[in-house]
Amino acid sequence: MSSAYRELEQHQRRLSHLRHVEAIAGWDEAAMMPEGGGPARAEALATLRVLIHERETDPALGDLIERAKTEAARGELDAWAAANVREIERRWMRETALPTDLVEAASRADSACEQAWRKLRARNDWAGLRPLLEEVVARKREAAAALGAKLGLGRHDALLDGYEPGARAARLEPLFDDLRAFLPGFIAEVVDRQRGEETIVPAGPFPIERQRWLGLTLMKQVGFDFEHGRLDTSHHPFCGGVPQDVRITTRYDEGDFLRSLMGVLHETGHAKYEQNLPTAWLDQPVGAARSMSVHESQSLFQEMQVARSRPFMTFAAPIVREAFPEAVRAQPSAFTDENLRRLQTRVKPSFIRVDADEATYPCHIILRFELERRLVEGTLQVSDIPEAWDAASRALLGLSTAGNDKDGCMQDVHWPAGLFGYFPTYTLGAMTAAQLFATARRDLPDVDERLARGDMQPLNAWLRERIWSQGSCRETDDLLTRATGSPLRADAFKAHLRARYLG
Amino acid sequence: MSSAYRELEQHQRRLSHLRHVEAIAGWDEAAMMPEGGGPARAEALATLRVLIHERETDPALGDLIERAKTEAARGELDAWAAANVREIERRWMRETALPTDLVEAASRADSACEQAWRKLRARNDWAGLRPLLEEVVARKREAAAALGAKLGLGRHDALLDGYEPGARAARLEPLFDDLRAFLPGFIAEVVDRQRGEETIVPAGPFPIERQRWLGLTLMKQVGFDFEHGRLDTSHHPFCGGVPQDVRITTRYDEGDFLRSLMGVLHETGHAKYEQNLPTAWLDQPVGAARSMSVHESQSLFQEMQVARSRPFMTFAAPIVREAFPEAVRAQPSAFTDENLRRLQTRVKPSFIRVDADEATYPCHIILRFELERRLVEGTLQVSDIPEAWDAASRALLGLSTAGNDKDGCMQDVHWPAGLFGYFPTYTLGAMTAAQLFATARRDLPDVDERLARGDMQPLNAWLRERIWSQGSCRETDDLLTRATGSPLRADAFKAHLRARYLG
Repeated sequence: MSSAYRELEQHQRRLSHLRHVEAIAGWDEAAMMPEGGGPARAEALATLRVLIHERETDPALGDLIERAKTEAARGELDAWAAANVREIERRWMRETALPTDLVEAASRADSACEQAWRKLRARNDWAGLRPLLEEVVARKREAAAALGAKLGLGRHDALLDGYEPGARAARLEPLFDDLRAFLPGFIAEVVDRQRGEETIVPAGPFPIERQRWLGLTLMKQVGFDFEHGRLDTSHHPFCGGVPQDVRITTRYDEGDFLRSLMGVLHETGHAKYEQNLPTAWLDQPVGAARSMSVHESQSLFQEMQVARSRPFMTFAAPIVREAFPEAVRAQPSAFTDENLRRLQTRVKPSFIRVDADEATYPCHIILRFELERRLVEGTLQVSDIPEAWDAASRALLGLSTAGNDKDGCMQDVHWPAGLFGYFPTYTLGAMTAAQLFATARRDLPDVDERLARGDMQPLNAWLRERIWSQGSCRETDDLLTRATGSPLRADAFKAHLRARYLG
Repeated sequence: MSSAYRELEQHQRRLSHLRHVEAIAGWDEAAMMPEGGGPARAEALATLRVLIHERETDPALGDLIERAKTEAARGELDAWAAANVREIERRWMRETALPTDLVEAASRADSACEQAWRKLRARNDWAGLRPLLEEVVARKREAAAALGAKLGLGRHDALLDGYEPGARAARLEPLFDDLRAFLPGFIAEVVDRQRGEETIVPAGPFPIERQRWLGLTLMKQVGFDFEHGRLDTSHHPFCGGVPQDVRITTRYDEGDFLRSLMGVLHETGHAKYEQNLPTAWLDQPVGAARSMSVHESQSLFQEMQVARSRPFMTFAAPIVREAFPEAVRAQPSAFTDENLRRLQTRVKPSFIRVDADEATYPCHIILRFELERRLVEGTLQVSDIPEAWDAASRALLGLSTAGNDKDGCMQDVHWPAGLFGYFPTYTLGAMTAAQLFATARRDLPDVDERLARGDMQPLNAWLRERIWSQGSCRETDDLLTRATGSPLRADAFKAHLRARYLG
């Protein structure tokens, strides 16, 4: 193999090593670090990140990439190496698209707005947030324009492409239109049907060490590899670490075990993807997870398609009862298979995205997707957000947020933190998960029986072959077409919702 | 303040940030990482360490140091900044003294020998270790010669100076001779006296979470700052992390709580030093702990001078009993104040250094100090170690190690790992601790009453002012003279031993 490509690979390997220590120090900050360690850690990580950024934007890389592309064009690289060059160039293009002073100005604006948001949201103080968010959006528009010019993309697409390489709003629109046409009527029908169902909320306390035992037991059951990962606690649950050592976290509430449990299984879906990426390419961009939507599809496959299914709940319910014998004795009817399943499949329009069920969740996303597109393109101004949010919320969820920005346009950290283009990946992930599960069910006819015995092996093997082991070798459309016979559509997701909630 | 010094300071600040993430990733490796994460972590840390080394030996530093020294000589720097330049130069001299190929050859020899040692020791296989250790010693002699040439020191002093800046074997010799003359007779007398004492070994099990509670309770009591540190478990206990976030570890044995407890208090002594280093200088060499012996003096101050003292045991014994109510019920006589104190002050010559009591411990060190000096200077050959060890062990401890190299010259990892010059710091630390405690007792007449109430505040304040807050601003002799009125002597240590064991 050629010399330019080899050199490029070595450069990326060293970068991956620095990102490894960054990931572990970042996990430590969230899961282990005592509060007093914060300022020193922030400085240490800032220096490390500058170093990583310097290496990502090393001027020598541009030439190396060009030479490696020539080698690839000459057929001197195999498919993975060629795809690796493509992914390296993709990152390099983004990393070098923005002038340093814009990066710094945007970073300052994001930090100021995000920090203020934490307090202002609690006070429902939109007027306080507005000028800060205006600064964030102004810088974001500039960045999107610069990125778009370099990548030959429109502004919002230029941002979207950062989380979801290859995705374009024009492709997403018909998918989201499909859901928008389907969901409000569907939700009304489900709510109506569930009105008659009795659901008993289990009363705690659910001791934390029993909740931890329950989470660990089910993680192990579904295939989390504890030789290459851990479960810990942090204020905001996440999946961090590195593929060889995946760190997932949860947060326990003694009064509610289901939320943490579903969170653990959600993060386990992310973790299994990371743990099963192609071993030989873990230190290269081509060995990384394909995109945010594919990542989210894996967590939602685990949580929504598997864990909340009737067969899996049949398997899991006795383990839940084993975890909390006292609570079960006190309130046996709350812990029946049927009640536990109902608790996990309640549909109810509500204000807060992160608390939403899987049927109403896409409404929250469609709302944000539409607004952020217009914000970035400049056809919506920050001052008009509350009104636009209220209108969309009424149309999609039947809920007015007028005067309640705290639970409306101020509820998420994403925009204050400068994250535009990220929201769609949640619902793309949900649709992808449904499409994958529908295909797997056709390929593996005994999936339900297996899940009823807690056996995810066939599904894991299926996902490993079709998704996990593929890293970023293929583009997302190609990956999904190979795995399911079609690029992403809304059909499987709609069919899943119909079957689960109206079946 | 001047520009060269400022630049130097900024360089060191960035270095300290990289060492921060190295320390946290290293702690994580020992305390958190699942085994499967090992290979990737090793690679990531190796890359980070190369980066740190590149920055430590940055050719631009030499000129910067020279210019900063000129600024210091012109009186443009305050005392701390001038001392910082001295410490920066000290590190720089050592880091740049050795040619790269020698560093690599030595590193290979050390790794090969250390890895083999783990197996060979268990098999008592000196013949297997010998050639590997010969290679280690050969490279170490080369390195010592090169370092010595650069620093104007003899070979062994050049190594010793790396752990104990300013220390010279010629200064240590009379101290160790003093102990050598004192200890064998003293030990015999104590052993004879203790022969009549009944000691009851408490029987477990001592549940790990109760041991942890006990350790945390006493750590808090003696002043460990949990806002800036944690206690976790690892195979080999250590004090790691960074001054702003000190990570100490222990290892629990359900059959023996005292060993872990004393280990926790020992590491707490190290931790309090780190946590109380001068805040304004933590990212500079002058803000670091003075030397290995001063560091060890702080752990031994906590463990030997305080925790094993009669007044502190009076305070701690009820907490020990509270920790293990079932064991106490089963065997009350094992948990009396007096029995617990006796357990912690048993003197008995034994083969293994790490298990030695405070009276016999220096014999182990004197033995190693004498042998390693001759090894490094070339007047002892590796092949003659077992015989020389046996002779010294018989003279100092009355124990023959002939044919038992496993418990003799093969017991420590230090030499196989290339650590020569480190051993003396343990006993220098013990002597320093005794000298500090004797002075503190004179300055603070109610120390014993305070300790009997578990109150370490006055001692902590005393140590903070005299040792902790001084960082590396003064040289060790100067530091100790300022703190105690005299450079290091063996008197206080001998007086301490006499008072505790024959008083």
